[in-house]
Parts: sequence; structure tokens; C-alpha cells
Amino acid sequence: MHYTDMSREELVSIQKELMHKFNEIKGKNLKLNMSRGKPSPIQLKVSYPLLDTVTSESDLVDENGVDCSNYGCLEGIDGARELLAEMIGTDKEHMLVFGNSSLNIMFDQISRAYTHGYLGHAPWSKSDKVKFLCPVPGYDRHFMITEHFGMEMINIPMTADGPDMDMVEKLVANDPTIKGMWCVPKYSNPTGITYSDETVKRLAALKPAAPDFRLFYDNAYCVHDLYDEGDNLIDIIEECEKNGNEDIVFEFVSTSKISFPGSGIAGMAASKANIADVKSHLHFQTIGHDKINQLRHVKFFKDMDGVKNHMKKHAEFIRPKFEKVLSVFERELGDLGVGTWTKPKGGYFISFDSTLNCATDIYDLCKEGGVTLTSVGATFPYGNDPNDSNLRIAPTYPTVEELEEAAELFTVAVKLASVNKLLKQN
Amino acid sequence: MHYTDMSREELVSIQKELMHKFNEIKGKNLKLNMSRGKPSPIQLKVSYPLLDTVTSESDLVDENGVDCSNYGCLEGIDGARELLAEMIGTDKEHMLVFGNSSLNIMFDQISRAYTHGYLGHAPWSKSDKVKFLCPVPGYDRHFMITEHFGMEMINIPMTADGPDMDMVEKLVANDPTIKGMWCVPKYSNPTGITYSDETVKRLAALKPAAPDFRLFYDNAYCVHDLYDEGDNLIDIIEECEKNGNEDIVFEFVSTSKISFPGSGIAGMAASKANIADVKSHLHFQTIGHDKINQLRHVKFFKDMDGVKNHMKKHAEFIRPKFEKVLSVFERELGDLGVGTWTKPKGGYFISFDSTLNCATDIYDLCKEGGVTLTSVGATFPYGNDPNDSNLRIAPTYPTVEELEEAAELFTVAVKLASVNKLLKQN
Repeated sequence: MHYTDMSREELVSIQKELMHKFNEIKGKNLKLNMSRGKPSPIQLKVSYPLLDTVTSESDLVDENGVDCSNYGCLEGIDGARELLAEMIGTDKEHMLVFGNSSLNIMFDQISRAYTHGYLGHAPWSKSDKVKFLCPVPGYDRHFMITEHFGMEMINIPMTADGPDMDMVEKLVANDPTIKGMWCVPKYSNPTGITYSDETVKRLAALKPAAPDFRLFYDNAYCVHDLYDEGDNLIDIIEECEKNGNEDIVFEFVSTSKISFPGSGIAGMAASKANIADVKSHLHFQTIGHDKINQLRHVKFFKDMDGVKNHMKKHAEFIRPKFEKVLSVFERELGDLGVGTWTKPKGGYFISFDSTLNCATDIYDLCKEGGVTLTSVGATFPYGNDPNDSNLRIAPTYPTVEELEEAAELFTVAVKLASVNKLLKQN
Repeated sequence: MHYTDMSREELVSIQKELMHKFNEIKGKNLKLNMSRGKPSPIQLKVSYPLLDTVTSESDLVDENGVDCSNYGCLEGIDGARELLAEMIGTDKEHMLVFGNSSLNIMFDQISRAYTHGYLGHAPWSKSDKVKFLCPVPGYDRHFMITEHFGMEMINIPMTADGPDMDMVEKLVANDPTIKGMWCVPKYSNPTGITYSDETVKRLAALKPAAPDFRLFYDNAYCVHDLYDEGDNLIDIIEECEKNGNEDIVFEFVSTSKISFPGSGIAGMAASKANIADVKSHLHFQTIGHDKINQLRHVKFFKDMDGVKNHMKKHAEFIRPKFEKVLSVFERELGDLGVGTWTKPKGGYFISFDSTLNCATDIYDLCKEGGVTLTSVGATFPYGNDPNDSNLRIAPTYPTVEELEEAAELFTVAVKLASVNKLLKQN
């Protein structure tokens, strides 16, 4: 029975019960952090053999004669370019391999837009206003970058197929100050949805008023399936080419959640003109990235089959965590009409929406009960969730047992906050 | 006898002899590249055991409980901060450890000055004009960064004690558009000289008109002694503190020429206010740098003694190369008055100045004879050596045998270009 259909007396009685349950959990002195999408230590162990692929006995010269222990090779070694390209369904000619962080590449691309501009266009710093489209809920660190550069961010609602494309098409066609858009096309952070073929095709066919508009297409979870049958995402670079629109997209990929967060490799795929543009700038920024670490990744994964097998091992750890949280949610909240949540087939997050718009109260109760969630509002630009509804659940780091406790606390918090709100309203 | 004291007949006869010798060398079909300060493969072998310090059997949690295989620790792990700090004579509180490239840190610092400004000061992009002081001859990649950002670069002559400080003091005191200065304080690129104590003290005591003026102090060769008795450089950070001037300097250090070029670690030392300022910006740029590689370096070098021992092994390779070049120069050019050159006790370069200002002709002859030198003018802003005199010799990569041939070609080229010029003038 939905809470909203209950009488005041029923709600008061449930409130009492929930308070009792909440205090009981609080007494356990939990101390769990579910705020970040962080791999667990045991999951990382699967990547430890990568550390043995390059030793003092290794030949550090790659198949093209590049000495990975010395200077040079700004674009990254061929093997690494091939590997990252294959992961996102493109080819190595479109790929540059950088250092350890795709976020850093995105930041640098934005920074370059401000200081130098893209492909001969004026630097964004010369514009009075720069706007960026932000599908919501989305990834806080994306929004932090655009906020840091003083852009005006425009919320775009997410649907089950990706961002609301009617809205996107209309906005970019008419406003030349809209310079870009954040996208997490597969197992989106935090909703876990994957852009439909139609969404990708419409993105690839965009005709923005700004000639230097770019899709910042963060394909962070490209191989992060939880099940044998994963979501399918078509290659946007090819779609853009079909539309003669090849310069519109910067696609990012990294092994941070495949090998090691902080010690992986990251790349950017783009059109040939964009690649040349980036390289001409990169040439001033560095002599090259860590090719020995690139070589480690090439030797360890070898090819796409290697990546897939590796990610199956990750899924063994992560799948039960997602399923545990989802089963507790279903059991505890299934019939109450207090929230909706996503059931992703991959990625790192479950997104929860409070039907009664009391996300802050839920967050506070969880905090009081010993579980830290991602801050409310973090999934929106400026940290401002206009409906106070969204909460991001990051289930990868804790153990299944810890998650069971955390999910129980979370559901009690959802119920209690919802009942409190209904009672206050009546 | 100096060429300038010779008669036309003597010069013509020498010219003929030199042409013969030049053609003889040309016939050998040399193919040597001395354009970059690049470690030789055999020298790099000394660092290969670093690759074995972290394996799948290793504990990746550092002494402070930081899991180097996971996210976090934006400032770098303590051990790496200590190691890099010790190398430049400061302490870890002043040190941030980044990724693989100190050039990248410098670039990012300049870029940040343009987009956001330092410590609350206006972004440099808001200024009509930004000027930068460039001691010459200097490092081309420094000058390339400031040129890339459209700055006006002002040449500062190098003396045996460092940059001409009278000129520096006068310029920065009166011109608020002068925002910074490049420095390579030890075994300077390319002259090999080390800043005197007085120079460092005067730099640390500068009172620039621009409140956001910064010394970009690239201590790239801090431990790169060729002899047991190396040059001594006093700690500028302490000197700045003595003058209440602690925010004036960004000091850079890297292991690119200690462990692996491209796969080393790099850091920046600065005041607490600057460190906090950088971190607040870095927080948007990345979640953290490669801590596993930081751990490798900590485990391999352990401490300053480890670094010193390691660099002694490098010196065994590099010293004979410097000595070979210098001995050929001395033997072939010692009495002719056609050039002067530095005799560094460390670093990666020998700087040669053509007394008759025919560096381009010397470069061209070397190229024709099979040896590629650093482009003429590269050691000056805008690639423009006003006297056409400076040539940078990078002796680390070739073998001693190759260097002997290259140095012989070089001295023949110097003599031939000088004679040609004198004959043309007469």
C-alpha cells in the first residue's frame, strides 16, 4: 500500500516503528562510505598481475621500435591506442593515449578551449557567456569542471533512452553560446542507462549554432557489464562521420575502473582534424606520457578478449553487490510509492529518486545512522537538485554484508523521511 | 694563432685544407642526432630494477595507510613528497607530487594563471599584455610555452653567476606586466652554469611590481653531478621565506633524467599558500596521479643516498662523453679565437658560442656532414638568436666513439664557417 494512501493514524504508527528500527541500526555504529564509485580492494587484486608484465628483464622497445623507457611518442604507443580504440568500437587512427586520468584530459580540453580555442575558432575566454548542456542527474566531477570555468550549465532531463534530445536539438540550434554537452553514454553515471541507437544518431547529427560546439562523450563504462548480456552502444564517431559532423565529438575512455584507479591509462578519440589540433597543443604541454605503463596494459590485456575476460572477473565481485542493494530496495520499498530506482546492467551506480522529494532528509538520516552517501545535489550542476529527489548509490566498495546493512539503513531512512514529510504536510 | 690575425693567403690555404677534411668526414655517412638531452639506452638500464620494486606480491598500502592502487591522495604519497623535496633541499610540506612530467606542471601553472589567476589575483587573460623574463641562452621548451600563450618574452643575458640580476631587478620593479621568469638554477640548460648564492638571494628578494609575479624555477638537474665535487645551489624556498617573499617561487623537479624519461615522477615545491591554491585547482583537474609509480620510486631510491648512488652510475656513462667533446674542442679550437664553450660539472649540455656569429653556417655544415644539432635559435625566445652565435651540444645519447666523430665534424664545421666568413668579410 502506498504511504500516500494511508491515514494519519497508520502513518504515525509506522513512524514509531521506523524510529525504533532506525535507533536499532544506529546502535550498531556502522561506518560505511558509499559516496564514490570506488573499486574494492579485492576487485583490484585481479589487476595485480599487470604489475608483473614489465620487469627489469623486459624488452621495453615496442613492436614499432619505440623505446618505452625514453622520451617521445606523443600520441601514445600503437598497442595502447589499438586497445583503447577497440574498447569503444573505433580504430587507433582516431585515438590518442594520455596519462592516468580521463578526467584530466577533459579538463585540459576545456582549458584549451578557453586559452586557445578549437581548430582556429576564438578562445572561449573571449566570449561573454559560455553555456554547457548537462544531462541530469549526471556526474558531479563533470559539472565541477564546467562550473570551475564559470560556464552557465543548463539541465537536460535524462530519459530511459538518454538525454531529452528534443530539448538538446532545439537549444543547440538556436544558441551559439552553447559550446558543449556532457555525456556518459553507457551505464550512465548515476542512472546506469545506456543511450539508445536513436539518441546516439541524433547526437551525431546535431547542427549546433556554435561551430566549436563539442560533445564531451565520457565513455567511462564502455566494458563494465554486470551480465553476459550487456547494453549495446553504437559507435558515435562513425555516426558523426556519416553526417559529415566528425569534429563534433571528443570521446574519452580510461582503464581507471578496469586496471587501477590512478595508475591506469586514458585516451581520447576524435576526428583526424581534432587529433591534429590536440597534438599541436599537447606538443607544448609535455614531451609524452608514461609509455611504460601503456606497455604494461598492452602486455596484460593483449586485446579486447583480454579486457572482456578481465571485466567478467570484476562482474563476479560487483554483480552480487548491485543485486543485494536492489533486492533490499525491492523488498522494503517495492509497494510504498516512496521512491523509484534504476536497475542497471552495468557501471558503478544505482540512482534513487525520492517520490516525496526528501533526499536531504534521507541523506541526513543515513549519515546519522553511519552511512555516508554522495552529497545530495552532487548529481546536478551547482550541487542543486531542484526537486531534492536524487540520491546516488555507489555499491562497489563495501562488502555484500556491509551493503546489506547499508541498504537496510537506507530503506529505513527513505521510509522514515517520507512518513515524516507526509505527516508534516497533513 | 687566432684566425682573425691571419692573412688572406693563410686563410685561403686553411679553407682548402678544411674543405678536404670536411668532405672526408662527409664520406663516412655519419647519422647522429645530438639535438635533444636524451639519456642513452645503456644509461637507462641502471633504472630497470625500479620496475621490479612493485609486483603482484607487493603491499600497495603505504606507511600512512594510503592504498596506492586506488583513488585519492591528490598531493602525492608522503614518501614521494619526501624524496623529491630532499632532492632540492626543501621539506615535504612544500612539495606536491604530480605525474610523469615537470614540463606538464609548468604548462598547467601558466594555463591556470591565464584561466583563473594565482591566489585571488586576476587571470592573466584579462591583461592586454603579459611579459616573461627569459635568461638566454635557455631551454627551448620553456620559451615555447610562454610563446604559445602569446606572452612577450624579454631576453636576459646569462652571466657566469646566473641571469643578469641588475637587469632583472630593474625590470620587474617597474613593469607590472612582467608576470614571471624562467630559471634553470643548476647546471642550466644549455650553459651548464649554476646560480651563485648571491643570485639566488637576489631572486628571493625581488620586489616585482606585479603581485602575481612568479619565478618558474626548473631545478631539472638538481642531482646531476658529473664529478664527486658538484656545484652547490642554496635552497631558494628558504631564502624566499627569509624575505617574507615565500609566494614568489614555483620550483619544479622531476626524475625524468634520474629514472625514466616519460615514466618518472615530477613535483612542484612552493609556499603553503601556493600549494593550497594549486590543490584547490587540481581538485577539479584530476582525482590523483599515479601513486603506484610514486611507490616504485620510493621503494627503489629509498632516500637521498639512494639517489646519489644512482646518479654516480649515470655520471660514469655521461662524464666520458662530456670529456670527449671538451677535449676535442680544446685540441681543435683552443687557439683559434673562433668560439667559446662552457665546461659544466653536471647537467646535460655544453653551450658553444661562435665568436664570428656564424652558428647557422656551423649547423648547416654539421647537418650536411651527418650530425643533427639542436636548431640554431632554439635556445632563444621565438627561436631568434640575435647574434647567430649559440649552439647547444647534447652529448648524452651517442656513444663516446660517435661523439668523437661528431665533435670532430663540429670543430671542422666551426673552423670552416669561421674562415668562410672572414674571407667573405675581407
